[in-house]
Amino acid sequence: MSLIEADSPVDRPSRYNAARMPARLIEALATTEPLADLFSDESVLRAMLQFEVALAKAQAHVGVIPRSAARAIAAAQTRAFDVSRLAHDMLRAGTPAIPFVKALTQFVRRKDATAARFIHWGATSQDLADTALVLLLKQALPILAKDLTVLESSLRALSEKHKNTVMLGRTLLQPAPPITFGLKAANWLSSVRRSREKLESTFAEALVLQFGGASGTLASLGKNGPAVAHALAKEVGLDCPEAPWHTQRDRLASLICACGVLTGSLGKMARDIALMMQNEIAEVAEPAGGGRGGSSTMPHKRNPIACALTLAAANRMPNLVASFLSTMSPEHERGVGGWQAEWPTVAAVIQSTGVAAASMAETASGLWVDPERMRENLEATNGLIFAERAMMLLAPKIGRDAAHKILESAARKSVQEEKRIASVLAEMPDATKHLNAATLSRIESPEEYLGSAENFRKAQLVKKPVTKTMRKKER
Amino acid sequence: MSLIEADSPVDRPSRYNAARMPARLIEALATTEPLADLFSDESVLRAMLQFEVALAKAQAHVGVIPRSAARAIAAAQTRAFDVSRLAHDMLRAGTPAIPFVKALTQFVRRKDATAARFIHWGATSQDLADTALVLLLKQALPILAKDLTVLESSLRALSEKHKNTVMLGRTLLQPAPPITFGLKAANWLSSVRRSREKLESTFAEALVLQFGGASGTLASLGKNGPAVAHALAKEVGLDCPEAPWHTQRDRLASLICACGVLTGSLGKMARDIALMMQNEIAEVAEPAGGGRGGSSTMPHKRNPIACALTLAAANRMPNLVASFLSTMSPEHERGVGGWQAEWPTVAAVIQSTGVAAASMAETASGLWVDPERMRENLEATNGLIFAERAMMLLAPKIGRDAAHKILESAARKSVQEEKRIASVLAEMPDATKHLNAATLSRIESPEEYLGSAENFRKAQLVKKPVTKTMRKKER
Amino acid sequence: MSLIEADSPVDRPSRYNAARMPARLIEALATTEPLADLFSDESVLRAMLQFEVALAKAQAHVGVIPRSAARAIAAAQTRAFDVSRLAHDMLRAGTPAIPFVKALTQFVRRKDATAARFIHWGATSQDLADTALVLLLKQALPILAKDLTVLESSLRALSEKHKNTVMLGRTLLQPAPPITFGLKAANWLSSVRRSREKLESTFAEALVLQFGGASGTLASLGKNGPAVAHALAKEVGLDCPEAPWHTQRDRLASLICACGVLTGSLGKMARDIALMMQNEIAEVAEPAGGGRGGSSTMPHKRNPIACALTLAAANRMPNLVASFLSTMSPEHERGVGGWQAEWPTVAAVIQSTGVAAASMAETASGLWVDPERMRENLEATNGLIFAERAMMLLAPKIGRDAAHKILESAARKSVQEEKRIASVLAEMPDATKHLNAATLSRIESPEEYLGSAENFRKAQLVKKPVTKTMRKKER
Amino acid sequence: MSLIEADSPVDRPSRYNAARMPARLIEALATTEPLADLFSDESVLRAMLQFEVALAKAQAHVGVIPRSAARAIAAAQTRAFDVSRLAHDMLRAGTPAIPFVKALTQFVRRKDATAARFIHWGATSQDLADTALVLLLKQALPILAKDLTVLESSLRALSEKHKNTVMLGRTLLQPAPPITFGLKAANWLSSVRRSREKLESTFAEALVLQFGGASGTLASLGKNGPAVAHALAKEVGLDCPEAPWHTQRDRLASLICACGVLTGSLGKMARDIALMMQNEIAEVAEPAGGGRGGSSTMPHKRNPIACALTLAAANRMPNLVASFLSTMSPEHERGVGGWQAEWPTVAAVIQSTGVAAASMAETASGLWVDPERMRENLEATNGLIFAERAMMLLAPKIGRDAAHKILESAARKSVQEEKRIASVLAEMPDATKHLNAATLSRIESPEEYLGSAENFRKAQLVKKPVTKTMRKKER
Repeated sequence: MSLIEADSPVDRPSRYNAARMPARLIEALATTEPLADLFSDESVLRAMLQFEVALAKAQAHVGVIPRSAARAIAAAQTRAFDVSRLAHDMLRAGTPAIPFVKALTQFVRRKDATAARFIHWGATSQDLADTALVLLLKQALPILAKDLTVLESSLRALSEKHKNTVMLGRTLLQPAPPITFGLKAANWLSSVRRSREKLESTFAEALVLQFGGASGTLASLGKNGPAVAHALAKEVGLDCPEAPWHTQRDRLASLICACGVLTGSLGKMARDIALMMQNEIAEVAEPAGGGRGGSSTMPHKRNPIACALTLAAANRMPNLVASFLSTMSPEHERGVGGWQAEWPTVAAVIQSTGVAAASMAETASGLWVDPERMRENLEATNGLIFAERAMMLLAPKIGRDAAHKILESAARKSVQEEKRIASVLAEMPDATKHLNAATLSRIESPEEYLGSAENFRKAQLVKKPVTKTMRKKER
Repeated sequence: MSLIEADSPVDRPSRYNAARMPARLIEALATTEPLADLFSDESVLRAMLQFEVALAKAQAHVGVIPRSAARAIAAAQTRAFDVSRLAHDMLRAGTPAIPFVKALTQFVRRKDATAARFIHWGATSQDLADTALVLLLKQALPILAKDLTVLESSLRALSEKHKNTVMLGRTLLQPAPPITFGLKAANWLSSVRRSREKLESTFAEALVLQFGGASGTLASLGKNGPAVAHALAKEVGLDCPEAPWHTQRDRLASLICACGVLTGSLGKMARDIALMMQNEIAEVAEPAGGGRGGSSTMPHKRNPIACALTLAAANRMPNLVASFLSTMSPEHERGVGGWQAEWPTVAAVIQSTGVAAASMAETASGLWVDPERMRENLEATNGLIFAERAMMLLAPKIGRDAAHKILESAARKSVQEEKRIASVLAEMPDATKHLNAATLSRIESPEEYLGSAENFRKAQLVKKPVTKTMRKKER
Repeated sequence: MSLIEADSPVDRPSRYNAARMPARLIEALATTEPLADLFSDESVLRAMLQFEVALAKAQAHVGVIPRSAARAIAAAQTRAFDVSRLAHDMLRAGTPAIPFVKALTQFVRRKDATAARFIHWGATSQDLADTALVLLLKQALPILAKDLTVLESSLRALSEKHKNTVMLGRTLLQPAPPITFGLKAANWLSSVRRSREKLESTFAEALVLQFGGASGTLASLGKNGPAVAHALAKEVGLDCPEAPWHTQRDRLASLICACGVLTGSLGKMARDIALMMQNEIAEVAEPAGGGRGGSSTMPHKRNPIACALTLAAANRMPNLVASFLSTMSPEHERGVGGWQAEWPTVAAVIQSTGVAAASMAETASGLWVDPERMRENLEATNGLIFAERAMMLLAPKIGRDAAHKILESAARKSVQEEKRIASVLAEMPDATKHLNAATLSRIESPEEYLGSAENFRKAQLVKKPVTKTMRKKER
Repeated sequence: MSLIEADSPVDRPSRYNAARMPARLIEALATTEPLADLFSDESVLRAMLQFEVALAKAQAHVGVIPRSAARAIAAAQTRAFDVSRLAHDMLRAGTPAIPFVKALTQFVRRKDATAARFIHWGATSQDLADTALVLLLKQALPILAKDLTVLESSLRALSEKHKNTVMLGRTLLQPAPPITFGLKAANWLSSVRRSREKLESTFAEALVLQFGGASGTLASLGKNGPAVAHALAKEVGLDCPEAPWHTQRDRLASLICACGVLTGSLGKMARDIALMMQNEIAEVAEPAGGGRGGSSTMPHKRNPIACALTLAAANRMPNLVASFLSTMSPEHERGVGGWQAEWPTVAAVIQSTGVAAASMAETASGLWVDPERMRENLEATNGLIFAERAMMLLAPKIGRDAAHKILESAARKSVQEEKRIASVLAEMPDATKHLNAATLSRIESPEEYLGSAENFRKAQLVKKPVTKTMRKKER
């Protein structure tokens, strides 16, 4: 859901359609509207019908069934189905496919009894269910991609804008040497972009037709199997794989994993932002999106709603991935229990990925950043985070151990007396012997202790696959 | 689509109500109808409304708000809510509670502006959402219990009926010494019953009111907090815990775990049945339930549909449990991402448990058992499974190693020449020297090699907590 | 490496014994020393040997094998085993039991060939492996309990000491109405104690003998099965269950789940402490334990090491639990792949629980608390967290909506002008019309806005099972 | 213990080296020996030392530290470390790195106090720990690849050899139209090969240096950061990424996922083989490998040991993957609890993948196949699996429904009278009206009902990325 929506939910240009929208309050926080639509009954029926219509067309094209039958089948509409009855029958049948085909047959038969004979010709339940799932996934990709594109460009812009905004590094939630917020944003971007690329390549590999008939041999089509398969693939707009994959779930599994990795990367960003939004830190704030409950004039009093939704998705995702992986060993040509568990898992994976991507896109594109507060938090350490720096300057001269002792003592004094570490050092002869006043005066300048931050930041804005050379080497 | 899936669903006694049933085709295999109803929008709204109405009544009772306000609030109906809008607003708000309260307030205000002021008085989002969830869970228990009661009594009956039905034991999917089918059923029962008991005790512990206000102190109720809490608990029919549990999810977690253990036990039964239904084994078959597609006259040609649904639930369950456990560390007084991930997980856990319990109840109550085929499969091993027995008879006389060698040689001969092992041994002087003809003739009798099977079977039909003495000892 | 990690581990009182400790650097952060010892090769061998020796003794007692054989078998020692060879053979055999029995037989045979014949008499691999596992678990319980006892008493003491220490409540990581640190500690305690009680009861239920022979019927022992089983149980110090549980993993599963819930509760405490240790918040600090790297004089500059170890355990635990649950459906009388996956999972579960319990025990018993900083952080909100309070005072008079508007406006002013909310309200006629000066002056007093905090705190220090009445009702 | 477990492990050509092997009995079934070695203390120390030595050399090369220091540091040996003390100190420190650096410093200082000052110069704990992990993973790849190469060529050979070996297809564990065993093997191969390719590409991407210093900026190296990083990468033999990835775990996560998908594909193969090894089916058998306990002369009496080990790995893997994914959201520049949980998970993932790959490689290279039994099992269905075929022949003539009814009736008669379905049909006028004797006589010929089996088999032996065109299209 885009930022463009007006603050008040009352005013916003409504994008949802009560009649169409499949509300499911128990899962309202775990999806976005386009993806809730995608896995709605209407949409699932449409995908199943698309398969059967395309199958009839393909078989008519190859000459396996009469063209008139294909035409009659193609006239079927999703509204012809009694969804409640279908849901009931699917549970009884243990498969979504058989009841659907029965219902479709009944519908077509009323108009053309002959055509009804040729529905689902030579196909098996899993051909219908798997291909329908793939057709849904195909529609999911652009929905995800749209938000990811916004997210990436927003992060890039944030990174550029804040390339000189220094802030505390934090390790184990404790102060560490400074970074720039530009680097932090670039780090988020880098991981999100790699994960999105993997997402796209796994989608490309997984979005293939499933068509194998009862045992995966297309036996009942005789010699016509491959011809029908290719025509069918073309008709539904999918690639035709070298063989059916009813027992080989690895391509789907890789797609699911890629969603998992991406959502993990989005979760990292959400975690950081939620932590930086703490009242005591107050370095950034989510935008005050419509309905988000945050005051538009008090950015640092906003709740991390988009972060919460993203972290909720990131919390559920690892086990959704595991759930899919745990059914990769189906028995023989169709398993008992594994395949039957896939649909809810896949739907939850896609919707979780989607809600995380949309939330972080909205967040990144409107993130409120407070560079002054970042500097204040940094200053509040009284220079303690530069102790490492001072030690590195002393160490070559007096050894690391001795340097460590001096700095430890200086750090303790700095904390106890609430004095800056440079001032403390300036009073210690052991230190001033080796570090002159000019050096000491600059020790606490964060700008001078950023090392390769800008180097690393810029390198991550460029899409440059690091492993190219390695891959060549390895193969 | 298999030919054998024949019985028309049209003929079955229909148990569903199309108007009422909340279809969600993508999850049709992952729930039962009563549980789909339970987590439907209508039901979720009812639970949320129940909390707000009860809160108003309790506060009126204690004197915190006017009685007239409570009456006006109590007049609200679930049909007053625009579900699609609510779903939209919940996602925006990152909580189901705030938009619900807003909508309820709008509704009540139209009739009684004063009453509207007292809605959700002193409560926080999580009070509403958590207690609503608990109220849903309270309704889930009898639904689960009903199926489990049928299951347990059916397993008990199966066990009694087949206490003398010998069959192969099977370890690592290979033949092992005989058991009785009565023992196998008792083993299933034992694990299911223990798991159900744990389910009930964890429900009893978890079904408590959540009511703590913003930080869990009921601050805005002043001294009236405990009084309101107790009145509210009474009003919604829940126990009142010693303190709010908004940050302590252990009781819910234990309930979820108990569902996981129970579903695992159900999955064990389904696994065994699906394996015994293999055409080459054909020892049992699921009943030919309406819409299940199995021919009622060809039990051993049925598909293991109920097993598939149960194993699908058992496949998803471990990761649903993990999903809940992974959000047990919320930040401070309400976390970012953990709590927000709970609802879909809990709903999936309950529905998965339910579909497994219902499926195994139906299966156990109509299981077709073929004692003859069980004996045939046992006989088909040519007595090889009694080799251990012969060895145990020889070992005390000639040592285990020597006995082992004789039996190994006999076993090989039995397999190669397709002769019964007793016959082979009868031709081996090393064996006949120690085992006389009478002994040898009885070696292959499964009835005489059942050891304590009947003892163990009967012991498991009795509900007798083994650990009673131990518990006393330990404490 | 932070400079502050100063205390030399050389100085600490060493608690480890280099000769004894089973190092495994790759898992060094995932265990404690006593638990690493418990799952060491020596300890595993000891448990396996204990089973075989006890079996021989029990069978001699019942008269199944010669007393002399039992004596000879009892003379075996763990050091007789070639551990590397055993590990190799176990992998080849796909079970830890067979190679162990072979090696034991070889060892005993050298001294008493007759006795060697009676090793493992009538038992199956799983009898040995399962009972050995249970014997290890039995030793784990006191190790865990010891730390949990320290933890609980420390939390109780913390709670009492800080019953009047006010601090910010925090929801969604944002400021919320005040709580006391005493309440926070009591909340931690409450969840930990309930989880520990469940741990103990699941241990009590699961610590039972496994003894069933090849198919779970003790066939080769004829009528002596139960007598041997009871004698064996007595000999190894376990209860004797009503039947073998080789195919019923529910009791172990419940034990594993209880570890999961407990570790989740410990993780909650660690999460809160790590967050409170942030430099910008600095309300508490882990104790400066030996080797923990924190300076003893700068508590608020310590790293949350114990929290990190606990959260690492809490991160791994949910999926360890799921891993165990996912093998609850073994095929028939012994499965293919499920049982074989249990040992590493159980060991990791116990060790993770242990490292979390030990870490939080150490933390609670030495936690540094800064009540002043807690109050400062609270004050730093300029009273914004009392806006709800002011609203609750206004609402009955002017309605919740109008009150909300006034407070929203006041809050905005408070933030923008950095003035306390009470001062802002004192300048707003809409507010002063209904709230007099005396009321306003006390609005920001945290002590007066603690509601039932102390009530809830005390209630949780008492061990009082809330569900007693409910349980009675339900049954 | 089964009698059939006969072959003595004493006779086998031993492949292990007792002195070297790091035994860990509790995990003996969950690793292979080369991979147990890889994660042994010695190997972990070697990887950590390699990083520190390479760092010193790289820094000397760039001129950051004296060359003499690098030489002195390079002289350190893993045997200089007291492993037990290290394990103890790592747990205390909450990181493996700091105690290692301290111990290394102590060691070097004894010989060269100046050199000791420059150890770990400018690096942070995570640089050491992450890069050491990557160096271990780099060694894992060839170990895994070796077994996968054997597996793939064995599967290819099996597929070619059995391209004409007909067998039952089986869906839901019930008979389905025939396939060839050659196709089944090709299906296994196809999924394994794709998964292995993904494994290799994710390794290539993940095997990169981690080097960022305290906050990921290499601040203490000033301008020399990138130069040192590149020299260090070269020295340890890794690629140098565009930036440190201490907070970005996506590349590692993708590697872990690829292991998960591969192990899932291996599990599928193991599941099928274990099922086919059932006594009642007996179509294949694992080879009688040394110590595997199977008689070499009774292939169909072997236990599925390699399958059990593989399925054990496949059972654990999904949750190991989830475990890694669940720590992808570390707090800021180094998290609390996430990173600290990685090592044991990664080690378990690699070892599980390895034991599955090795087990299936051994199995595939020596699989015993019984084509005759395959045909017998197929024949035993009395032609029922060809009912679909007969129906497809009748349907175009009389409609699918009418055809379905005829076949249903014929199927029932075939089962009840134990007659072949062709014979039954030959007696039904409704059938013979449309199917002549010649057609009927061939209906039950599996060879004539294989459809595109050979087509699909061959297509999967060729490595031909199906998605090439699609990828082009999409991008």
